[in-house]
Amino acid sequence: MSFYLTILGSSSGLPTSKRNSAAHVLNVHEHFFLIDCGEGTQIQLNRFNIRLGKINHIFISHLHGDHIFGLFGLISTFNLLNRENDLHIYAHPEITHTIKYYKDHFGNKLQYNIIIHPFKTARPTLIYENKHITVETIPLKHRIPTVGFLFKEKEKPKNIRKEQIEKYNIPIKEIVKIKQGADYITKDGTTIKNEKLTLPPFKLRSYAYCSDTVYSEKYVQYISGVRLLYHETTFLDKDKKLAKLTYHSTALQAATIAKKACVEKLLIGHFSARYKDVSALVKEAKKIFENTFAVEDGDIFHIVAERIK
Amino acid sequence: MSFYLTILGSSSGLPTSKRNSAAHVLNVHEHFFLIDCGEGTQIQLNRFNIRLGKINHIFISHLHGDHIFGLFGLISTFNLLNRENDLHIYAHPEITHTIKYYKDHFGNKLQYNIIIHPFKTARPTLIYENKHITVETIPLKHRIPTVGFLFKEKEKPKNIRKEQIEKYNIPIKEIVKIKQGADYITKDGTTIKNEKLTLPPFKLRSYAYCSDTVYSEKYVQYISGVRLLYHETTFLDKDKKLAKLTYHSTALQAATIAKKACVEKLLIGHFSARYKDVSALVKEAKKIFENTFAVEDGDIFHIVAERIK
Repeated sequence: MSFYLTILGSSSGLPTSKRNSAAHVLNVHEHFFLIDCGEGTQIQLNRFNIRLGKINHIFISHLHGDHIFGLFGLISTFNLLNRENDLHIYAHPEITHTIKYYKDHFGNKLQYNIIIHPFKTARPTLIYENKHITVETIPLKHRIPTVGFLFKEKEKPKNIRKEQIEKYNIPIKEIVKIKQGADYITKDGTTIKNEKLTLPPFKLRSYAYCSDTVYSEKYVQYISGVRLLYHETTFLDKDKKLAKLTYHSTALQAATIAKKACVEKLLIGHFSARYKDVSALVKEAKKIFENTFAVEDGDIFHIVAERIK
Repeated sequence: MSFYLTILGSSSGLPTSKRNSAAHVLNVHEHFFLIDCGEGTQIQLNRFNIRLGKINHIFISHLHGDHIFGLFGLISTFNLLNRENDLHIYAHPEITHTIKYYKDHFGNKLQYNIIIHPFKTARPTLIYENKHITVETIPLKHRIPTVGFLFKEKEKPKNIRKEQIEKYNIPIKEIVKIKQGADYITKDGTTIKNEKLTLPPFKLRSYAYCSDTVYSEKYVQYISGVRLLYHETTFLDKDKKLAKLTYHSTALQAATIAKKACVEKLLIGHFSARYKDVSALVKEAKKIFENTFAVEDGDIFHIVAERIK
């Protein structure tokens, strides 16, 4: 079962010829979730071979242009492609004005529904779930109301060990309970521990997207133990005054968050165009948190399914 | 003196991984004129090494998304780059709503002025001039009010032949008149023809941008004799019903316009994404008008300065 992230855009406010504005796609069990939609997102989706028709849910962190200026083009293109499926957009309530403006001026022939799911940004909120995952907001601190998003796999029933079921000749109605974690008591009263009857569960996979935000330890609790964290890294620590002033983070700060939250892997991006070479940002982050990667447009990061040992 | 066109985007409504939405830049004597501004225009400007600070004038053919969805991003980026120069936008009066929406929602810190030059679309109108060129609208016929743009070099004073001036010992006050085309009468009453005293004038250079439009012979008169014509070519002639229905042109129609207008060179673009290979479009156009080129993003077309023989 797939769980992987594709980076569509990794620049900050100023896109470059190599880095598009903010946009990620998370594929969870072949459901594609678009996170932010900077200018050129539809072109990046084409470039990286993600079928546009697969996108049904768009999560918008905040309403700054570099995170949403690709929305109008994408909405139009969906229409030209004869989309029929509803499009769900999860964002700050202000998004209704953006969509209304689009519909009033460009969307007179829109053949599909746009369903807006506005959310409050002050507290973590469950905004989406399907049978595989939940999506919760992560309150961040930026110049305007902003959240991150936490995508978490749901716990699944355990996989049974067939040979044990046969060995103890366990009836089907008991198997359901065993999958939920129950032990089994044989006819002669012996207790067979659940661990003996089932395979170890899969480590739950999770992805947290934190962009844009100034350094704050308040949101560490919400991303604690996450498997993969993307944290904006607009500046080097030598420019931390500028980071504070513009409500952005430095590489050192992103790494500190990753360390405090005990995440498995840290991805950094949203780099200021002032740094021609991002190696200094990676170096700075790695001093605090070794398992750090600087993303580039088109990068794919898988979290493979693995059982707890 | 430079006069060249850079193609930033050559797709129709649906951009592809190789073709961006509509945008051209015309460089006339180091003044850069942006024509249309589809999504991703700022990224294309970066990619093709055109300095954003050089863009002071934007000409918008019509207010369909694929011709303007790059405006918001470009306006924002200008601001991030600390632009101070006024930005002039020439477009249908409806553009004021677009810019107002931008300012109300994203432009609260805009440090430079956006000056809108609204124009009516029914008649050809002079909308811009500097000492080198004029820009006139070309009324086109599309689903919404649409114009093309005709960029024309202005006639310059003639260059004198120094050796002739010396030979006849012509005084400075007479030289001014000769540059304007006057003959010279010597003290003994002999008339020296202007052609003998001046170099042949330069062939005036001109560029016409015609996109989007259904086939119509009405605008042929406005582009008659133009040196370089870009004409939208959304469809093959076998799809001409669809062209008519959507108010677009076929390759055959674009070439017919070029032929009737006696232009020097025809560029075709704005191709429907349904044609994976554009060679059929070129072939179709060349049957009518041999000097046809299918543009690609990044292509540059120069018109060199040459004297009339």
